Amino acid sequence: MQFLSDNAASVHPAVWDAMRAADSPDAPYDGDALSAALDDRFSALFGRECAVLWVATGTAANCLALACMVPPHGAVVCHEEAHIEVDEGGAPGFYLHGAKLLLALGDGAKLTPDAIRAVIDPIRDDVHQVQPHAISITQATEYGRSYRADEVAAIATLARERGLGLHMDGARFGNAAAFLGSTPGEAAGDVDALSFGFIKNGGMSAEAIVFFDGALADVARYRRKRAGHLQSKGRYLAAQINAMLDNAVWLANARHANAAASEIAAVCGARLMHPAEANELFVRCTPAERETLRKQGFGFYDWGADAARFVTAWNTRDEDASALARAIASL
Amino acid sequence: MQFLSDNAASVHPAVWDAMRAADSPDAPYDGDALSAALDDRFSALFGRECAVLWVATGTAANCLALACMVPPHGAVVCHEEAHIEVDEGGAPGFYLHGAKLLLALGDGAKLTPDAIRAVIDPIRDDVHQVQPHAISITQATEYGRSYRADEVAAIATLARERGLGLHMDGARFGNAAAFLGSTPGEAAGDVDALSFGFIKNGGMSAEAIVFFDGALADVARYRRKRAGHLQSKGRYLAAQINAMLDNAVWLANARHANAAASEIAAVCGARLMHPAEANELFVRCTPAERETLRKQGFGFYDWGADAARFVTAWNTRDEDASALARAIASL
Amino acid sequence: MQFLSDNAASVHPAVWDAMRAADSPDAPYDGDALSAALDDRFSALFGRECAVLWVATGTAANCLALACMVPPHGAVVCHEEAHIEVDEGGAPGFYLHGAKLLLALGDGAKLTPDAIRAVIDPIRDDVHQVQPHAISITQATEYGRSYRADEVAAIATLARERGLGLHMDGARFGNAAAFLGSTPGEAAGDVDALSFGFIKNGGMSAEAIVFFDGALADVARYRRKRAGHLQSKGRYLAAQINAMLDNAVWLANARHANAAASEIAAVCGARLMHPAEANELFVRCTPAERETLRKQGFGFYDWGADAARFVTAWNTRDEDASALARAIASL
Amino acid sequence: MQFLSDNAASVHPAVWDAMRAADSPDAPYDGDALSAALDDRFSALFGRECAVLWVATGTAANCLALACMVPPHGAVVCHEEAHIEVDEGGAPGFYLHGAKLLLALGDGAKLTPDAIRAVIDPIRDDVHQVQPHAISITQATEYGRSYRADEVAAIATLARERGLGLHMDGARFGNAAAFLGSTPGEAAGDVDALSFGFIKNGGMSAEAIVFFDGALADVARYRRKRAGHLQSKGRYLAAQINAMLDNAVWLANARHANAAASEIAAVCGARLMHPAEANELFVRCTPAERETLRKQGFGFYDWGADAARFVTAWNTRDEDASALARAIASL
Repeated sequence: MQFLSDNAASVHPAVWDAMRAADSPDAPYDGDALSAALDDRFSALFGRECAVLWVATGTAANCLALACMVPPHGAVVCHEEAHIEVDEGGAPGFYLHGAKLLLALGDGAKLTPDAIRAVIDPIRDDVHQVQPHAISITQATEYGRSYRADEVAAIATLARERGLGLHMDGARFGNAAAFLGSTPGEAAGDVDALSFGFIKNGGMSAEAIVFFDGALADVARYRRKRAGHLQSKGRYLAAQINAMLDNAVWLANARHANAAASEIAAVCGARLMHPAEANELFVRCTPAERETLRKQGFGFYDWGADAARFVTAWNTRDEDASALARAIASL
Repeated sequence: MQFLSDNAASVHPAVWDAMRAADSPDAPYDGDALSAALDDRFSALFGRECAVLWVATGTAANCLALACMVPPHGAVVCHEEAHIEVDEGGAPGFYLHGAKLLLALGDGAKLTPDAIRAVIDPIRDDVHQVQPHAISITQATEYGRSYRADEVAAIATLARERGLGLHMDGARFGNAAAFLGSTPGEAAGDVDALSFGFIKNGGMSAEAIVFFDGALADVARYRRKRAGHLQSKGRYLAAQINAMLDNAVWLANARHANAAASEIAAVCGARLMHPAEANELFVRCTPAERETLRKQGFGFYDWGADAARFVTAWNTRDEDASALARAIASL
Repeated sequence: MQFLSDNAASVHPAVWDAMRAADSPDAPYDGDALSAALDDRFSALFGRECAVLWVATGTAANCLALACMVPPHGAVVCHEEAHIEVDEGGAPGFYLHGAKLLLALGDGAKLTPDAIRAVIDPIRDDVHQVQPHAISITQATEYGRSYRADEVAAIATLARERGLGLHMDGARFGNAAAFLGSTPGEAAGDVDALSFGFIKNGGMSAEAIVFFDGALADVARYRRKRAGHLQSKGRYLAAQINAMLDNAVWLANARHANAAASEIAAVCGARLMHPAEANELFVRCTPAERETLRKQGFGFYDWGADAARFVTAWNTRDEDASALARAIASL
Repeated sequence: MQFLSDNAASVHPAVWDAMRAADSPDAPYDGDALSAALDDRFSALFGRECAVLWVATGTAANCLALACMVPPHGAVVCHEEAHIEVDEGGAPGFYLHGAKLLLALGDGAKLTPDAIRAVIDPIRDDVHQVQPHAISITQATEYGRSYRADEVAAIATLARERGLGLHMDGARFGNAAAFLGSTPGEAAGDVDALSFGFIKNGGMSAEAIVFFDGALADVARYRRKRAGHLQSKGRYLAAQINAMLDNAVWLANARHANAAASEIAAVCGARLMHPAEANELFVRCTPAERETLRKQGFGFYDWGADAARFVTAWNTRDEDASALARAIASL
């Protein structure tokens, strides 16, 4: 009973079917019909004009998006526990040619306008200090928290006031939208670019970079090729994304994962380190308690010395979630 | 009847099967059993110790391999028509942090020790000029030529003498090995790293970087992650490569493509711009002749004003190859 | 009798005086009065609005200027023998983050619109090929040739048509302007940025980057600091440049060097490989002839097997120039 | 009465004299006799083999040194208030091609082995996290603190244990050595490279990068040229450094500045935020007190809301130091 991560879950049947259906010749790279359809599909989904590029990883999505907003001599404000800071092997330094990450604080890896101002206001407006050019937030956050529409709006307003770009790392964007019960447009708010993740949500190897500013996308196309991310058989990536949008599979999958997390969270009480607002749970428990759970067959990561992380996925079985809930309740 | 390229051909059934078989949970990234098997499989194939990383594109494979051999202030010698120079959107400049490509000449995009020396010997050994640190050759070349074992050996000897790394872009390595009738080890010779291409040969989205020097691979693992090329569901890439190695599918596929090219080449006579030594044909023909061929349903690229490029693939139908041969013969 | 290069000549007395005069406290970096004066002084000199930054080397000047015009995924068109390609140790690759140099041909290291079009017209407008973003020309060229106003204008027109920036490497800009007998504004034409060299012309360690587009300068200020080129005692650099502008020392020095070159060129006849249009002479002569000259005490560089390069400077003594002229005439 | 900074102080007469004495032709770049002398001079000074390069700024010195120790995918551990982090305009990101700075804590901007371990021990040894490759410490620190020999030794031991390079930013190295009363070799300890600053200590535009590992210097020479920091009239920089070493001008100047700081510190008592161990004083005082001091003609920077920074220099007049001491005592 696997709660280690959603990042290696199996692939949704609809995704497989779409990939197989793409197995006939079409134009290489992103010249195929499936890739060409993405702009319209996401524009419809978000209710505003989008330009969309597929890439194979969330790291590539995040870094390509930011590279189009931030010059090499600039900086990105992000949370000190943001994935781009902590878990991307320095990819932002590579893609942004040495631009800096400026680290802000905030509960549950959430940023606020105040937290951002605390970082950027002390920066002297001179050439000795690296100036911010963009903000990056994660929806849902690295601790499974979801930004409400007004929270994103407040950050977007600050970004506009300061002339900063706004990027959203949506590796688990579907889970956030599902939790919020809002449209994708509401969950994304007024960002300039969104890394819309599908891999953790039933896809195999395709994420979408959704640009709400076409000029950024025009740069990103060159950068994607230059980064070796323009696959020649791109139709198999586009097929995955189209399949996830068809019949809102992305939303159904996210809801399923969230529901499993909710069921488990319900028994955690004060053990919960962060409100359960997506599909990740951070649960206080002793080493002995973790040992107990592992002996019952539950797989998960330790989170420091006194906690565990449980992640549900699109394919978490109901009985497994129930079993874990019972097991935690019995600790 | 498609002869445009092999780069968007459909995926071989054995690859599909292997991907489906990988659709159960395993460790993320390259921690899965299929990824872990690659070192041994390629070591067996090449008869010497290898360390192998999968990546999604040939561009990423080439540039990651070179980035481990060449410091940012160095240079790579390659043919002036090498893929890394002409068709990778500046990816070497990105991955190698501004290192230079030094362009050598040679018929059929083949390098020779003399051609390489003509480029590197005039470089003053001082800090004002960029010093070479590696050589990159393409097997089979961009014009479908294959290096014989002694030709690679001569270049490898020069590389050793000058302290240069040696990389082989093997986007169509299978086709070269098939043409040469030699083992992979003979076709690769004494290179330090080989980009072993599978995508043009029946794969979907997985190329192998084969390092014959483990120290380079140790660096490459960090660089791959940093470039956003470490996919979380890496087992689907490893599955593709394993499937290509099983039963030597890679060799059968390459032979098939080569045979189709051979059949067509046989009728081309003096039209052939380059000997047919893999699966690409560059055929002199007038615009009117190309028009004639296109009217008969053949798809291919113009190659300048007076020639056409035909590429066969693992799935080129025998009757299509025969039809093209007849059509060219009738021009 | 030194004709090796102008690049290590001694420093002009007026420059020394100005540096000494700057030896009282003022604001650090470029906050001092002398640095602040540069925009106005160059604006007056060129007859149009300029923003000017000092840097310590021509390489830094060229590369900072270009870095403000060309994104990392772009390219610069330059002559295949341009200093930025041949003699800057790969600095453009560093400063431009891996952008490419596209090499054009032309007699005497001069570019023409046709030569530039021959390079850029074949570039497919797709993401697989690196797109040009700027042109760089050298005034006077690496072979001592000077662009006439209409030649620069023709290149500038092409640049505008294609949306390319235009940079002029003016390491010997003074010599070109002196030869042309034109104003600096005419000698520079409609470029976006000029590296105006003073070091070879009597300065010690200060070149000016003259931006005719203020937006580029605003970026360059950050890039200069980031490159470690913002000296804290910048007033000593600004003093050098101001001293060179005072009483048109730059022009007098350049005229002196040119006159010495002219006197020597006058006896060279068919030996001259390139018309003498600045202060560099490339003179055909056999190894034996070079030996003869060296025995007479003349210092110079061999230029390949069959020629020599003689460079005059602001402080070349009249008698030395005459002596060299006589010696060459007597060969 | 100027206590703003030592970074724009006038140039020491011995430096002027040496520069004037260098005003005769010699080989360009670093081929001159003065540049060639540096290795031996510093080897004698430090009592161990050194290879020394001049550069024009401390930023260039720091970043070139680090670039030779740290690959683009690596990281440098430094204090969160280190100059390279706070005041170099992102130069480390540029020179190190996007390598990361890992920020450690410590009183007075001093690092300790514990503080360093607190940063590096939690880094997982996997490709998702950026691995440390070097440590950089500042002697004297950004708060005017000097590392004792055993403190440097402890950090050097940790560096060796972990396979990390060790760099010392010695923008005020002379002041530290003077304070410690130790030899330069003792003040530097077992570092791999030292940025030995002269500009703040009476020089004009020359810092020395002292490499105690010749292999690093061999790389640095290429990187210096590539960064546009190889000046053609390098002898004027070498002259400055030689002049500072002659008769231990560097030490006399540092002692003078330290003595002035000491005199002022003596009256500061509890106002002192950090022990005075070099030539910088951070003094608690209210806005009203600062106003009082400014009215008396003292120039200095505010340090946050409740303090002021006073920096003495090689040329601080005794009477000015005394006057400031009296003024502070009278607050």
